[in-house]
Amino acid sequence: MTATVGFGDRLDAAILRTNSVVCVGLDPRPAQLPATLRPADLTDLDAVAAAYETFCIGILDAVTNLVPVVKPQAAFFEELGPAGMTVLARVIKAATARNLMVILDGKRNDIGTTATAYAAAYLGAQSAWGCDALTVSPYLGRDSIEPFANRCRETASGIFVLVKTSNPGGGYLQDQSTAAGKIYQRVAELVTELNQPLLGSSGYGPIGAVVGATYPDQLRELRAAMPTSPILIPGFGAQGGAANDVAGGFDARGRGAIVNSSRHIIFAFERPEFESLRDSSGDRHWQAAAAAATIQMNQQLNEVRRRQTT
Amino acid sequence: MTATVGFGDRLDAAILRTNSVVCVGLDPRPAQLPATLRPADLTDLDAVAAAYETFCIGILDAVTNLVPVVKPQAAFFEELGPAGMTVLARVIKAATARNLMVILDGKRNDIGTTATAYAAAYLGAQSAWGCDALTVSPYLGRDSIEPFANRCRETASGIFVLVKTSNPGGGYLQDQSTAAGKIYQRVAELVTELNQPLLGSSGYGPIGAVVGATYPDQLRELRAAMPTSPILIPGFGAQGGAANDVAGGFDARGRGAIVNSSRHIIFAFERPEFESLRDSSGDRHWQAAAAAATIQMNQQLNEVRRRQTT
Repeated sequence: MTATVGFGDRLDAAILRTNSVVCVGLDPRPAQLPATLRPADLTDLDAVAAAYETFCIGILDAVTNLVPVVKPQAAFFEELGPAGMTVLARVIKAATARNLMVILDGKRNDIGTTATAYAAAYLGAQSAWGCDALTVSPYLGRDSIEPFANRCRETASGIFVLVKTSNPGGGYLQDQSTAAGKIYQRVAELVTELNQPLLGSSGYGPIGAVVGATYPDQLRELRAAMPTSPILIPGFGAQGGAANDVAGGFDARGRGAIVNSSRHIIFAFERPEFESLRDSSGDRHWQAAAAAATIQMNQQLNEVRRRQTT
Repeated sequence: MTATVGFGDRLDAAILRTNSVVCVGLDPRPAQLPATLRPADLTDLDAVAAAYETFCIGILDAVTNLVPVVKPQAAFFEELGPAGMTVLARVIKAATARNLMVILDGKRNDIGTTATAYAAAYLGAQSAWGCDALTVSPYLGRDSIEPFANRCRETASGIFVLVKTSNPGGGYLQDQSTAAGKIYQRVAELVTELNQPLLGSSGYGPIGAVVGATYPDQLRELRAAMPTSPILIPGFGAQGGAANDVAGGFDARGRGAIVNSSRHIIFAFERPEFESLRDSSGDRHWQAAAAAATIQMNQQLNEVRRRQTT
């Protein structure tokens, strides 16, 4: 069975509907929770998980209709054991109920039937976790990505394959030159090839790529090399990437990429510039600050996109 | 704080104690469960999770004292959603209670504080999941592995970094030649380098490597290139690797590597050669077959190890 509207088209439609290319990263950390939510005992995993649920769903409420997509970071939920996983499932469900697409950042992969199991676990409304997309690691090669591509086709879901990551050490393997180009270029080729049979009317298919905001030149290069792949751009804000750095990620219509920010949005209540919101919102200052930070990031990126298209 | 006996020494001691280099892979699949355990409705995730618990703990009982280590495959538990994760945690705990070391096969990784969160989630008795070791993907480079190495040092736990995987497509990136050698060789260098400050009295440190049984020549090469790293060898049995193929993975003492088998042990009840066990064990034929398959694999590998050391 082939779903009628694929992930590439669904993401593009969500960008148009919200007029936003911001992806809000849900990276909760116990010590950084708003004081009103922080459990007294940070080693009580059940209490921390409950606080994560309140916090993440509060963030979802603050950004609903402002952004097309959110990206929970699996590691921070896994850190709490099964209690964290239960909350992760609830957060994903709550996002979907608010018409927010969900990319789970799990950087999963394995071989053969195990890759099929990861795809079946996470991708599509029928799956146990019910995500729209998952981040996937490419080290295991082509036959490890194919089971995800098949699942994407069957369930109108997507993946974002790590191509060029935002960390300083990412180049250790990714930037190595081979007879077939640099390693990240070889991954980009694979992404484009697997995507080709799955393109939607927007011009985009479900096999996306992760390219860090911290490498603007490679971002521009990879946008051209993978013209049919949605690009997920991490590293904006706290990791040092600025609005101009991500310009190269967008297509001529100012679309085709989403820019993730985690800490700058979800912990915006710690930013002095949003201090003035405190009076009006009282306890829920953190929600108002998250909304304000999202609106600010939308404005910055929409200005970049506007310049891109004129 | 530095733990007194590191993972390399702990694994070596477990190999000596059990006189076994077999790692039993816990890869449960709904349709392959013994008929007496298989739920009527395979889409009922809670029922399947409960069956996985009975099955996996039954397998643990069958192989306790026969092998040093078991390796649950995270994907198959994740496929069941939060119910699967709850059972995964119980299976890990049950293995530890039976004096079986646990390598969680999750192929996790990420950058910076997120890698730290994965390490804190899984590694060491104090962590939420309480594993002895975790498999880790290297695509993100050196700074993504360091947080795991730090955690290994602090909690006497280990990691197995993917170096040369057993699947046919693994070479797409791993076998690419660069000025610094092939990609898998570059990963092997990193593994050895991170391991160096952490060696125990056995000569082994906590930073191990995954090298597939399906590439015997590279296994021999990598054993020499990473003399201080325990090697986890998948691909034996169902994936085609035979006892002689793994010979190159052992050191001159016949140790330093563990060989994983999943389907050939846990689903041994389907193998005609163990049919004769059915009469005596009735319902629990699958446990007797798993024990018999483990003993057979121990004999095969111990013969290879004996030849290696003489």
